[in-house]
Amino acid sequence: MTTSPAAAPRNASEGSGWGWGWTEKALSDDECRALGQMMPGLDADPIPIPRAYDLRLATPRIAPPPTLAAICSTEPRDRASHTYGKAFRDIVRALRLDYDHAPDLVARPRNEQDIVDVLDWASAADVAVIPYGAGSSVVGGVECRSAEHHAVVSLDLATMRDVLEVDRTSHAALIQAGAFGPELEHRLAAHGLTLRFFPQSFEFSTLGGWLATRAGGHFATGETHIDDLTEAIRAVTPRGVSESWRLPASGAGPSHDRLFLGSEGALGVITQAWMRVRPRPTHRASASLRFADVHQGFAAVRAITQSGLRPANCRLLDPAEAMLSGVGDGRAGVLVLGVESATAPVDDRLAEIVALASDFGGATTSPPGERASSRDTDDEGAATWRSAFLRMPYVRDGVARMGGIAETFETAITWDRLAELYESVREELRAAIKEVCGVDGIIACRLTHAYPDGAAPYFTVTAPAGGADQLRAWDALKVVAGDALARHSATITHHHAVGRDHRPWYDRQRSEPFGAALRAVKRELDPAGILNPGILIDP
Amino acid sequence: MTTSPAAAPRNASEGSGWGWGWTEKALSDDECRALGQMMPGLDADPIPIPRAYDLRLATPRIAPPPTLAAICSTEPRDRASHTYGKAFRDIVRALRLDYDHAPDLVARPRNEQDIVDVLDWASAADVAVIPYGAGSSVVGGVECRSAEHHAVVSLDLATMRDVLEVDRTSHAALIQAGAFGPELEHRLAAHGLTLRFFPQSFEFSTLGGWLATRAGGHFATGETHIDDLTEAIRAVTPRGVSESWRLPASGAGPSHDRLFLGSEGALGVITQAWMRVRPRPTHRASASLRFADVHQGFAAVRAITQSGLRPANCRLLDPAEAMLSGVGDGRAGVLVLGVESATAPVDDRLAEIVALASDFGGATTSPPGERASSRDTDDEGAATWRSAFLRMPYVRDGVARMGGIAETFETAITWDRLAELYESVREELRAAIKEVCGVDGIIACRLTHAYPDGAAPYFTVTAPAGGADQLRAWDALKVVAGDALARHSATITHHHAVGRDHRPWYDRQRSEPFGAALRAVKRELDPAGILNPGILIDP
Repeated sequence: MTTSPAAAPRNASEGSGWGWGWTEKALSDDECRALGQMMPGLDADPIPIPRAYDLRLATPRIAPPPTLAAICSTEPRDRASHTYGKAFRDIVRALRLDYDHAPDLVARPRNEQDIVDVLDWASAADVAVIPYGAGSSVVGGVECRSAEHHAVVSLDLATMRDVLEVDRTSHAALIQAGAFGPELEHRLAAHGLTLRFFPQSFEFSTLGGWLATRAGGHFATGETHIDDLTEAIRAVTPRGVSESWRLPASGAGPSHDRLFLGSEGALGVITQAWMRVRPRPTHRASASLRFADVHQGFAAVRAITQSGLRPANCRLLDPAEAMLSGVGDGRAGVLVLGVESATAPVDDRLAEIVALASDFGGATTSPPGERASSRDTDDEGAATWRSAFLRMPYVRDGVARMGGIAETFETAITWDRLAELYESVREELRAAIKEVCGVDGIIACRLTHAYPDGAAPYFTVTAPAGGADQLRAWDALKVVAGDALARHSATITHHHAVGRDHRPWYDRQRSEPFGAALRAVKRELDPAGILNPGILIDP
Repeated sequence: MTTSPAAAPRNASEGSGWGWGWTEKALSDDECRALGQMMPGLDADPIPIPRAYDLRLATPRIAPPPTLAAICSTEPRDRASHTYGKAFRDIVRALRLDYDHAPDLVARPRNEQDIVDVLDWASAADVAVIPYGAGSSVVGGVECRSAEHHAVVSLDLATMRDVLEVDRTSHAALIQAGAFGPELEHRLAAHGLTLRFFPQSFEFSTLGGWLATRAGGHFATGETHIDDLTEAIRAVTPRGVSESWRLPASGAGPSHDRLFLGSEGALGVITQAWMRVRPRPTHRASASLRFADVHQGFAAVRAITQSGLRPANCRLLDPAEAMLSGVGDGRAGVLVLGVESATAPVDDRLAEIVALASDFGGATTSPPGERASSRDTDDEGAATWRSAFLRMPYVRDGVARMGGIAETFETAITWDRLAELYESVREELRAAIKEVCGVDGIIACRLTHAYPDGAAPYFTVTAPAGGADQLRAWDALKVVAGDALARHSATITHHHAVGRDHRPWYDRQRSEPFGAALRAVKRELDPAGILNPGILIDP
């Protein structure tokens, strides 16, 4: 969720070494203390931000072969910055300067042949290879916790970040895996096109990462996942290069691309993909509605998706989430709606959706006399929500510095079970926070994506650690959350991926024969078992 | 493409023994002779319809074990009717009473345990198992041509055809694999719901078949494939039962269901699925436009899909196809458009689409003074096309009886390459028909499905055999068609599946590592290699 960049984008690798995003956007010490005033039980003062790489890393266990030396780094700063993603437990450990799992090497391939060479060498030398986009994983996706291999190399794709070709006729573009969101949008904008894929991590993640993790993007309905925007994928596996044909659709056998979508670096290294792009929208309108009863809000979203309407934005915030986002007082839920088009005005469509939502008790939040929507601008509720949405990970880091616990997790479930899941997860988490932290926390929820047959609730949990160790408390709450989802047969992730943190529940979600099939594929494509060990299956 | 049945549907297994569909709808001898008048070079008289099962089949090579005897048949009529699908070469061989590849047994499982028992027995006894829906395959999907196994059993799912559960809240239904189109729609209609999946074979094919072959359905844009309507799949593999969770979406690992979608019976037997259903449309409108230049028609379809409009129907017929369908004189292409909604009038949306198409030179075909569209009824062009669409397979059988050749094949390709493919395929086929048959044939094409990045052209080829053996001539033309598609990197099938007839080109389309991955899955899930041997991969 961001507006498109006008100038050439900043290089996201200039970001903070320990936390989310840009250094200067992190909460200041005073802002952290202000958090403490809002949530009793946090520490009095924030954990200091570690001095830039005041690091004591173990000596690398391996040296790169001469043929790869030019693309490999053993610099402590490189190794540290490639140790973690951006999960809460990553932030806490980075603040503690705990880099026990640092990779021995960071390799930056200049081209596909470099990747082939790294995989060949690593397969022979029993070195684990962690494909690395920009390290925004919040599920332990890039942290090698296994000690089974001789050494670990982080394979950073960020040097392969070009937009190689734009097919304006077919509305498709060939983009390298290492391209960050802002720069690929910048390149496409020159052609009047856009991928229109704006995850919260947009500035700090890459196309390859989105593909490997089946990321969720801009559209709250319809083409919600990166999967839907993918025309063809090229990936290097230890078994050779796999490339699917550029096709708008095919019925020939099980989908080629769907094997790599969600493979999280365990089956191959995605190097480039043909992506479906589209003209930049010229008409946009948004509106917000207030729901005194959040369950009526659920019903409204259900009616909207089941009516066949496909708003670009359709995000229902429950009362706590609306308050955290600054668009509510904690007593009502808020539905943020947005419609967009590259060809025709959208006010009528928005009006139709608003009317439908109103049937379920939704009240438009714009002051009387003003229009509920305006072309090309957000209404106030949507703008406030969008800004809060982008701010949230920085706040999360502030909570971490103040000794608190902050976790987000998300799922998807069919409509018939949503209300029960929503109530049950909140109740169980409330009890668990009380037990683990000895105090009350804040549990907020929004529906990030909606479908005719269900929706994706996204929970945010914030609490003081209450004297408990932050990491242990987080682990305990994670188990409660994962178990609650599994008990309702709700997926362990809608768009955050499995990583290492979700493995126990992913293993329950997956059928035994499908797990066996994946293991067989892993053994075939990665016979030495070097690719992102610990991810998805154990071969 | 059919209207929904009002009464309980007829049992499709009452159909013709040798050709497509219902016996009484087959062309009469006189109608066949009339075809001969339209296409010089056909025989003077049709091949006689074989007397009902005047069969001389080889003795079954195996007897079912006592525990399975109750569900197994060795009746020649059963074995013959399960020998083939409904490809041209199947019809010709059935007319010739050539049943060399008849299965030894036909098993009709009553429940999932029966399927488990059949697979267990077959794995141990080295018996090939061909999962069989209703045998409408036009690509050799159900014909066991391999002699590697001890015997062959056709596993007919038609006894497992119930709609087990309807979730009206989530708009989803649990349907058994053996359910035919009309009966599952009949059951859903009682709830005001519809799967809205109407392939040409609607009356003569099953849900399980659609899933296993990634069939293409009602919608010409958007949710074109059965894949998009699938919420969860349950399948029996020799390695155990695989079942995915009911989820509106998930980002947890590579998609469970996508492994079985398109697996064509080679990885497991799909027994039931949760399918996404929807309210029956209450508003419908259609219109037809004439394009003097078919390439302008292509451009119009491209503009429509790239505008974000998603008409339910958007089928462009080239001049020859329009003539065959009775909606043109052979000098212009025709675009058939349809829009539908369960909640709101659609005339405005249709008007918007028609206006866009008019920008590319499309002229509405309705007589001046009449409306181009009318609610809840087809315009004349759409109605004529629809009726011709359902009639075509019967005509094809008539051509077969008159000693001619009739073939349909379809593909998908991105817009940038469509025009070249269209011209090149027609040119190569024209030359090949001349060479193989010594005469001219008819080559017609329509776009059956359209996407923002490309479209699915569907070719129909009809020619007299010109003294050549019908099967050899067909084989020769098939090679020309498949090679032409492969040369343009166009998929060998958009929705007809691979079967045995498309294997050579599927093998070229698939990357080597993906082929290796599929083989590994096959070995894992079907270690004895009994499931539909010859399909997709050779283990």
